[in-house]
Amino acid sequence: MSKGESTREAIVHEALNQAVQIGLEGISIGVLATSLDLSKSGLFAHFKSKEALQLAVLEEAIERFARKVILPSLAEPRGEPRVRALFCNKLAWMEHTGFGAGCFFLSLEQEYDDRPGPIRDRLIQSQRDWSEVVTRAAALAVRERHFHASVDPEQFAFETVGIWRAFQQAHKLLGDPKAKARAERAFERLIDEAQHKKRS
Amino acid sequence: MSKGESTREAIVHEALNQAVQIGLEGISIGVLATSLDLSKSGLFAHFKSKEALQLAVLEEAIERFARKVILPSLAEPRGEPRVRALFCNKLAWMEHTGFGAGCFFLSLEQEYDDRPGPIRDRLIQSQRDWSEVVTRAAALAVRERHFHASVDPEQFAFETVGIWRAFQQAHKLLGDPKAKARAERAFERLIDEAQHKKRS
Repeated sequence: MSKGESTREAIVHEALNQAVQIGLEGISIGVLATSLDLSKSGLFAHFKSKEALQLAVLEEAIERFARKVILPSLAEPRGEPRVRALFCNKLAWMEHTGFGAGCFFLSLEQEYDDRPGPIRDRLIQSQRDWSEVVTRAAALAVRERHFHASVDPEQFAFETVGIWRAFQQAHKLLGDPKAKARAERAFERLIDEAQHKKRS
Repeated sequence: MSKGESTREAIVHEALNQAVQIGLEGISIGVLATSLDLSKSGLFAHFKSKEALQLAVLEEAIERFARKVILPSLAEPRGEPRVRALFCNKLAWMEHTGFGAGCFFLSLEQEYDDRPGPIRDRLIQSQRDWSEVVTRAAALAVRERHFHASVDPEQFAFETVGIWRAFQQAHKLLGDPKAKARAERAFERLIDEAQHKKRS
């Protein structure tokens, strides 16, 4: 890695640390330059604009999520084992392997809720990609005959997303000690139905 | 209503309009005073601090939610009809009868995620109360024998919250035209199981 590349990487990492605490809009070029011992213009040599930096930070977060949640799950056998791995790895991400301050992506969703532009577009794309990963894993589980042929993989993904989000609220905001057990039980119900039931 | 009371009410309403757009922390006493044609000190005569105003705004939001979502649902017969009404009224709230900018409470959850204090405490209490309303409605459905005796009302409430949250993301962030149909289908599955199935 060249010096330029490693400086760029250090900037993105530090900016991500800031963003996890205060949001992507809260990133301050001044604070960032000071904490990295760079001049503001030195920093702008790597990123032409604050928005370009914000996009790089979001990209880094998306990559970390892929490394911690998606890739290890794809290493599991296709079918139910992979679906289960996606569920558990994402739950662990929200609980402790993520950025340690709740779910960064959920915060961004609120932050960019009504703020159109390239950051919101990239965020939406990442959430669509993630739903697609879960949908594909469920479709493979149907193909492997682990799930009943009547299962709708998109619906399965929608409901799994719901369980994660209910967990996030119960665990993070409400401090409910039963949050994880409830999420796991909801997921078992979903899996159980996917295995056995036929519904229109 | 006295003049003081109606001024106080006007301040809270205008502050709520601001907060829906930019969050509770974003409320500006200066902007508020200007738009209501009051002096800052006149405004502070009604609220001793910004935090007192923020709490009043949150209280107003909680009351509106109760009026639009909870009260009409409690008017339905106890049991499954009431559970269904809670589900539908909350879905409608997120879709259009709420504050029109996604779910205000969800935004607050992110805003006060890591910001301890009376506002976060009140927010948490309101979310616990709301879960409790759904839990009680499900427990009554068990008592009325609309739901199977093996149904755990708290688990039912947890999973219902998940469906609302999945809907929120699909509808608001991803703009998924199938969001509502998916939420309704997930809820029918939950109801269907509550009526018929026994699970540990």
